[in-house]
Amino acid sequence: MTTIADLRSSVEWHADHLEVIDQTLLPREQKIKVIATVDDVVDAIKRLVVRGAPAIGICGAFGVALGLTEAPQTDAEAAWAAVEHAAETLVSARPTAVNLSWAVQRTLAAARKGQTPGEVFDFAVNEATAIQGEDQESCRLIGECGRKELAGVERVLTHCNTGRLATAGWGTALGIVYAKTQAGEPIHVFASETRPLLQGARLTAWELSEAGIPVTLVTDGMSAAVMSSGRVQAVIVGCDRVAMNGDTANKIGTLTHAIVAQANSVPFYVAGPLSSFDPSIVSGREIVVEERPGEEVLYAGGIQIAATVPAWNPAFDVTPGEYITAFITDAGVIRPPYLKNIADALEARSQ
Amino acid sequence: MTTIADLRSSVEWHADHLEVIDQTLLPREQKIKVIATVDDVVDAIKRLVVRGAPAIGICGAFGVALGLTEAPQTDAEAAWAAVEHAAETLVSARPTAVNLSWAVQRTLAAARKGQTPGEVFDFAVNEATAIQGEDQESCRLIGECGRKELAGVERVLTHCNTGRLATAGWGTALGIVYAKTQAGEPIHVFASETRPLLQGARLTAWELSEAGIPVTLVTDGMSAAVMSSGRVQAVIVGCDRVAMNGDTANKIGTLTHAIVAQANSVPFYVAGPLSSFDPSIVSGREIVVEERPGEEVLYAGGIQIAATVPAWNPAFDVTPGEYITAFITDAGVIRPPYLKNIADALEARSQ
Repeated sequence: MTTIADLRSSVEWHADHLEVIDQTLLPREQKIKVIATVDDVVDAIKRLVVRGAPAIGICGAFGVALGLTEAPQTDAEAAWAAVEHAAETLVSARPTAVNLSWAVQRTLAAARKGQTPGEVFDFAVNEATAIQGEDQESCRLIGECGRKELAGVERVLTHCNTGRLATAGWGTALGIVYAKTQAGEPIHVFASETRPLLQGARLTAWELSEAGIPVTLVTDGMSAAVMSSGRVQAVIVGCDRVAMNGDTANKIGTLTHAIVAQANSVPFYVAGPLSSFDPSIVSGREIVVEERPGEEVLYAGGIQIAATVPAWNPAFDVTPGEYITAFITDAGVIRPPYLKNIADALEARSQ
Repeated sequence: MTTIADLRSSVEWHADHLEVIDQTLLPREQKIKVIATVDDVVDAIKRLVVRGAPAIGICGAFGVALGLTEAPQTDAEAAWAAVEHAAETLVSARPTAVNLSWAVQRTLAAARKGQTPGEVFDFAVNEATAIQGEDQESCRLIGECGRKELAGVERVLTHCNTGRLATAGWGTALGIVYAKTQAGEPIHVFASETRPLLQGARLTAWELSEAGIPVTLVTDGMSAAVMSSGRVQAVIVGCDRVAMNGDTANKIGTLTHAIVAQANSVPFYVAGPLSSFDPSIVSGREIVVEERPGEEVLYAGGIQIAATVPAWNPAFDVTPGEYITAFITDAGVIRPPYLKNIADALEARSQ
């Protein structure tokens, strides 16, 4: 069996190219895709070869360096122009991905400090590597924090994919699972399939199984059956955006699990870096939920599985803070009352 | 637009054969399958060409008559032997289907009273027709009862398929939707897809759409998003078996909707005939839930959509009576306290 330390990262830099696990082929095939040009990065992001906000950001960051490999740069001026063009192209791959834009801009700013083409390249690679390292460290901290908080918990339910495929490290909610495994503590994961795009069934089930961690797949509607039968002791999920009062936007289906957990007295944890907390929004009412095409609900695995009728397809739901037992972050556990304690945690980080 | 009265019944008897809507082809193709022999009936039940307990029972009942069409019977003795053989074969098609066995035995008993081959055939057809008529009448009564109870309700969520495809009539929970439509009252149905076998996506979405009734498909995990956003005013589901205290076994996913409904103060109704209430069990704890093969969770629409991992696949869950606002039956509305009021309703029926 592969040990966790041996597991391949979803995004790896190799001197002059990236290697990523092609998530469009999972779980049927585990294939490494070589990404050697800016256009390759854009294509990989657009086609969801790479997904997960941190993983996309890291690909974009290394993509800035790839802007220099396509043509010889005779001077710093030409190199700057090349990385600037690359950055522009990369950000446009997914204009709404905040993390991608942030990582690309940060890498571009570092590259611009280079005084030779070689320096521009090295500075870009170094900054992208730093971003990747910070994400890995953030995942590690979340994992350790969650491992201590969930001491004695041996059976958890999770939703969507928050693991190695979504981040540079072990992931957020799944980071806790990997940390427990690494520490030799028993852990069994119930993964809900996460319709419509099946990230739980395709990705979480695959990556846990590959890591030798016991996983049982269930449908999203089995939430109450799993919890009322005592099969899990806690629910752990990730987060896309957290308001200052603890209201949390996450993959559609999360709120259903949260309500069912509370009704069954099962603790409900949200795991994520402090950077997911948004000081600009006080409550979840301010979060606008993206609605995706209804066709996604009519399809599964590329084929139509439903009658041709209208479908509603919100990408996220917003779980009110009162359903959340605690947040597990890279800056420790945050407990209620959230308005005060989230503000305190952000304040402490900024100092 | 087809009016509701014009809609084809899922099972129709035509002089010497049955015609059924082939549910294995829905929603892609609406095709009528002719069933002319006992073996055809067995095949249709086994392959889920026909599904839904009442619909299966009715096919089985007419199947008894089909036992006489295969070879000429010279006397009553030979005819009795033929229907007895048919009954035995039919019941073995699905040994655990209580409704099938009940309908076949009842038809056989009637057929056995025939004194000529012609009488045996006619008595069997008459009894099967009576069973079909009783089911239709039961659906009609449930529909009318629910229409009055849900006066003013214009948007409902339902789960699985409880309509024309599952019964001889308009169905149970969907019977209420058809009754409202027939009465000219506006109704919009949110259908949850009902993984793993997708009865909501394939069958409910199809049959409502065919009847011109507005339907919006959602995934099972969207339950909380639908209800917390005020999109529905009530949930209506069917039932497989109800204990005397109101605990209700129904398609997996029902309990999740019930818990989410209560948390959002959305009334949760269970619709079904009084024959679904089981006086032999006091509480849901006595109901053994069938577990089906995990493979069903790994597949959708005939293709594998998940990593190859273990899956848990309970066919039903049991919703405690305290989550149920009321039962809508062919003997009227039953409200809490259920132990007393269900007993009273069964007592009144038996008199």
